[in-house]
Amino acid sequence: MYSFVNDYSEGVAQPIMDNLIKSNMEQTPGYGEDKYTQKAKELIKSHIKSDNSEVHLVVGGTQVNLISIGAFLRPHEAVIAVDTGHICVHEAGAIESVGHRIVSVEGCDGKLYPKDIQSVLDTHIDHHMVKPRLVYISNTTELGTVYTLEELKNLSEICKNNNLIFYIDGARLGSALTSNINTATMEDVANYADAFYIGGTKNGALFGEALVITNPALQDDFKYFIKQKGALLAKGRLLGIQFATLFENEGDLFYKLARHANKMADKIQRGFTENGFKLLAEANSNQVFVILPKTIYEQLAQEFPGSIWEPYGDDSYIIRFVASWATPEEEVDKLIKYLEKFN
Amino acid sequence: MYSFVNDYSEGVAQPIMDNLIKSNMEQTPGYGEDKYTQKAKELIKSHIKSDNSEVHLVVGGTQVNLISIGAFLRPHEAVIAVDTGHICVHEAGAIESVGHRIVSVEGCDGKLYPKDIQSVLDTHIDHHMVKPRLVYISNTTELGTVYTLEELKNLSEICKNNNLIFYIDGARLGSALTSNINTATMEDVANYADAFYIGGTKNGALFGEALVITNPALQDDFKYFIKQKGALLAKGRLLGIQFATLFENEGDLFYKLARHANKMADKIQRGFTENGFKLLAEANSNQVFVILPKTIYEQLAQEFPGSIWEPYGDDSYIIRFVASWATPEEEVDKLIKYLEKFN
Amino acid sequence: MYSFVNDYSEGVAQPIMDNLIKSNMEQTPGYGEDKYTQKAKELIKSHIKSDNSEVHLVVGGTQVNLISIGAFLRPHEAVIAVDTGHICVHEAGAIESVGHRIVSVEGCDGKLYPKDIQSVLDTHIDHHMVKPRLVYISNTTELGTVYTLEELKNLSEICKNNNLIFYIDGARLGSALTSNINTATMEDVANYADAFYIGGTKNGALFGEALVITNPALQDDFKYFIKQKGALLAKGRLLGIQFATLFENEGDLFYKLARHANKMADKIQRGFTENGFKLLAEANSNQVFVILPKTIYEQLAQEFPGSIWEPYGDDSYIIRFVASWATPEEEVDKLIKYLEKFN
Amino acid sequence: MYSFVNDYSEGVAQPIMDNLIKSNMEQTPGYGEDKYTQKAKELIKSHIKSDNSEVHLVVGGTQVNLISIGAFLRPHEAVIAVDTGHICVHEAGAIESVGHRIVSVEGCDGKLYPKDIQSVLDTHIDHHMVKPRLVYISNTTELGTVYTLEELKNLSEICKNNNLIFYIDGARLGSALTSNINTATMEDVANYADAFYIGGTKNGALFGEALVITNPALQDDFKYFIKQKGALLAKGRLLGIQFATLFENEGDLFYKLARHANKMADKIQRGFTENGFKLLAEANSNQVFVILPKTIYEQLAQEFPGSIWEPYGDDSYIIRFVASWATPEEEVDKLIKYLEKFN
Repeated sequence: MYSFVNDYSEGVAQPIMDNLIKSNMEQTPGYGEDKYTQKAKELIKSHIKSDNSEVHLVVGGTQVNLISIGAFLRPHEAVIAVDTGHICVHEAGAIESVGHRIVSVEGCDGKLYPKDIQSVLDTHIDHHMVKPRLVYISNTTELGTVYTLEELKNLSEICKNNNLIFYIDGARLGSALTSNINTATMEDVANYADAFYIGGTKNGALFGEALVITNPALQDDFKYFIKQKGALLAKGRLLGIQFATLFENEGDLFYKLARHANKMADKIQRGFTENGFKLLAEANSNQVFVILPKTIYEQLAQEFPGSIWEPYGDDSYIIRFVASWATPEEEVDKLIKYLEKFN
Repeated sequence: MYSFVNDYSEGVAQPIMDNLIKSNMEQTPGYGEDKYTQKAKELIKSHIKSDNSEVHLVVGGTQVNLISIGAFLRPHEAVIAVDTGHICVHEAGAIESVGHRIVSVEGCDGKLYPKDIQSVLDTHIDHHMVKPRLVYISNTTELGTVYTLEELKNLSEICKNNNLIFYIDGARLGSALTSNINTATMEDVANYADAFYIGGTKNGALFGEALVITNPALQDDFKYFIKQKGALLAKGRLLGIQFATLFENEGDLFYKLARHANKMADKIQRGFTENGFKLLAEANSNQVFVILPKTIYEQLAQEFPGSIWEPYGDDSYIIRFVASWATPEEEVDKLIKYLEKFN
Repeated sequence: MYSFVNDYSEGVAQPIMDNLIKSNMEQTPGYGEDKYTQKAKELIKSHIKSDNSEVHLVVGGTQVNLISIGAFLRPHEAVIAVDTGHICVHEAGAIESVGHRIVSVEGCDGKLYPKDIQSVLDTHIDHHMVKPRLVYISNTTELGTVYTLEELKNLSEICKNNNLIFYIDGARLGSALTSNINTATMEDVANYADAFYIGGTKNGALFGEALVITNPALQDDFKYFIKQKGALLAKGRLLGIQFATLFENEGDLFYKLARHANKMADKIQRGFTENGFKLLAEANSNQVFVILPKTIYEQLAQEFPGSIWEPYGDDSYIIRFVASWATPEEEVDKLIKYLEKFN
Repeated sequence: MYSFVNDYSEGVAQPIMDNLIKSNMEQTPGYGEDKYTQKAKELIKSHIKSDNSEVHLVVGGTQVNLISIGAFLRPHEAVIAVDTGHICVHEAGAIESVGHRIVSVEGCDGKLYPKDIQSVLDTHIDHHMVKPRLVYISNTTELGTVYTLEELKNLSEICKNNNLIFYIDGARLGSALTSNINTATMEDVANYADAFYIGGTKNGALFGEALVITNPALQDDFKYFIKQKGALLAKGRLLGIQFATLFENEGDLFYKLARHANKMADKIQRGFTENGFKLLAEANSNQVFVILPKTIYEQLAQEFPGSIWEPYGDDSYIIRFVASWATPEEEVDKLIKYLEKFN
């Protein structure tokens, strides 16, 4: 059995593990004041060519979202997001828990467009309502779709024109930037966003997300927020070592791991279509959404479980299969082989 | 000129004013420990035949909503409401500000139905999502519609079956209970809801809302919440005097004022239809929604302003006209007379 | 029996009542957009000679404290206050409820001094601790003491030098400014503070506190906060009418009411000392703290109750007697007469 | 140079590292639903002989404090703690950030006593004040002192008698339970506390704290809080593997690591006294507080840095030296040797 349920089923990529082992008994200052964290931050800033950015390393994605949004907004300010956004559904109310309303819009294929933002601005006009102030997107989105450079630019533009903060949840940014339809670089992302984070957890780290605050107006006192929300890791070097390893040589390992995940997903996708199954939509990242008859999935799940996204008609499911940095190509081959018997 | 913009344009009904004047130089204990507050609470409990209820008097509607919901819920618990609900739009994020997510559904004509609740329950299934725990409705709704007894009963039932708190925002409860299509009494409301409030501000008081907590499990320590949110009025007797006056003789004044508002609204509504204008929907409470050509409304607004609800096609508006306890019948007559010229 | 328990036992000063009655059936826009509120704000700004200030009228003192502090601070920022401060004890955790730590210091006689502030600054040095950002004092203090002009100036100075917001709770500002030892004007207060409020509730209004934000950097979007915390009064004119009445003719009524309260307190104080009782300290405002044997107070309380502040030794109490705008001189005379029998 | 600055300078104890390496490429379910987490929880519950307890593993100490206190308390409820408590000072307002006031008392040597609790109960008597509801202690305390069994029992008793939740921060619980003056077992701690946590970060783990909720009334829905505060680790098995390793064989590794730290601290302490230096107080855990002339410490700090706790008179410092699971005995010997030259 091999699971395609998600991209955080295994531990850590070997080069990172090696560095953790190597440094284990070194003494370093706590709370991210160590040389590894320093190095990781420098590597990231250099990679995005942005000396004025500030980088912070924290453990998890919900954590970085709630800390950032909590730090960036005043209490009356609200977030605009698509209703499938991670913060809208799968964070147990984390954003509201720090006091902010999320104004959700429908979007399209998990993506947000300027007209969605405009519709919120048009209906939030005075102090009886919240004041929209931050635009949240994720790239890749929850549905595995990828923003083009043009789309990011357009979102950035409407944000700048309306004094909105543009924030990108990059839990799967690696997958987005190595997607075959992607046209943006991480430097582009840094140029267009006021803040974004680079996901480590879903791209080969044990854990860890690197928040990049490119807008200097949002940088003040950020460490206080990390501490206050319980996210200042005592042995902060663990984050430093991981991101330093991922971003050495212009992010060589980071992109390599992500590219592998996408490649495996693509292969899985072709395996399904070639065996006569329909996709929900063409996948361009590490998540594949395929329509499977319930009877077939129940059998398949014994060997190669994915996750049931939602029912599709009476007899089928939409099933999500996720490939990751750790997915062995031979398991993908076995899955495809297995599919042939349904053909 | 006479304004039909809202139902809080004037001060206070004369019998209440008389009692405020009469008691003015009496000394009473502060913070609601006075005899008037005591009396008001007793009158309300007696009127709804519920000794086990607890009554709290506070100044405003957003206030009572945020205090109640904040007191009733644990931090991970969420509210279900229709997306036109007052707490969703017009309270500047008050509920999120005390930490709770509102899961909004579309509803129908401003009303929430059991199937809407069920759809939220079906999709909120584990600790990655908020836990739906309180159902919020307003009666009358933001669109002036009124729940029937049967509808309230059905909502109460699904709440009880799913351990949900049923909370009714009664900013315009007087208008609902004296609506010509209403089939519920305040006692019914008390029986079906875990908590509800009786609006004074929009029904003849200077200010004031009477929260009734019928479910004893929700009553503990409630006064702490009133104080903590800055809502414990020093001269609490002002609330006591007003509600005691409204609820003497089984709510005689309360219902009389509400009935007047509804009657005036009905007359306004007929005035419009008889002069050839179309309604958005048949009104059954103190709010009338009528479709008016922009050119006509612009003229009318000089003498009898209502408020622009939203555009209707390219050339018309939906206009809301609100009648209140204070609306003089002669002003309604003048409005109708004025309409004739457009006929 | 006449109560000296507090300064909010009676209703409202007659000139205000007259204006409430006179305007009762006028129609005005809601939520403080009316002409009375406008006028009140102008009168206050003119009285303190500060066009750049912003004035907001809200119902109660805890409310104005929690809204202001919540609006002025970012989540990691903290308040410095003396441990007897109203926000530290008698607001049921209102400030913490909006997320802020209060760093309390001992102070002296209810007053805060620059050295107290310095001691907090010296020990709060990095992001593992909260960041002190707002200095809270009340004038008069909870112990009835009054800040001198010099003391206010010194506090303002240390605040300015350390980028701290200087906030003054003026629930009893009238009493402070008419104290026989006072050397400051309201204009001085406005010059030294970044924000302060002028108490109406304890100085002749039914309710109401006028927040003055003199520092333009703190003014942005403040109305959102008033709404979000449930403090935007629908019939906002009630606040407007009251403060317009209090501040007509350079605050004539406001100061007259306060001066009366102080004068009555002074007479009470002399009554006690002349009959052989010891004061806790010389009172200079409308609160008198006197040491009374328990047996005597128990008798006295039947006719002229004050409130037990705390025990004093085994056999005595410290009793607080409060005089107000409404205290009739003949009741004070009767109290003093009554004291003679213990002599 | 070897640093005695804190007990989280190194990485992870070798047996834990071995298990992390061994399991690295295994696939497990995310978010703590894996077999390792399951095993760790069972081992801990078995060790404290409490089937009814619930165990949750989270990354850090501030995190577990804010989640627990946030989950256990209603918004008006407050914490009682000594003013040197970690939550009072070094958590950047984390507890206030989730809305709760901490009522701090002086305590003695970092410890809280029943009389301290009683004094808070005596002065918090109605809804104008917060309601004290949770007693927070840490063991060892911030000053390295250790509670005796009797002291824990007395605290538990006053808590039970007053419906207070007794919560123990065990960031250094290992050090406390292996102290030479300790008389309590972890089973005792579990019996007396309503909830406590077992610190991993400061006792040989990469990170991780195991919260044990012994009181079933506090267990409901706890996972929602972990998720909502951003603390639900995607690769939860990392916590599971670490605590399973620490608690195999009745906590063999856990206690061994802690015992080593205490033994090293004891040796350091004797090294100081034997060379003529004075202690602030006799240390009984892994923290040593010694009084050193500034000139001497400045020299010593080049080779064996501790941390400056506070000044002592004009010419000396109180210096904290911390020993840990990782402190090599030869470095301690070198330190002692180094001290001889000042003798």
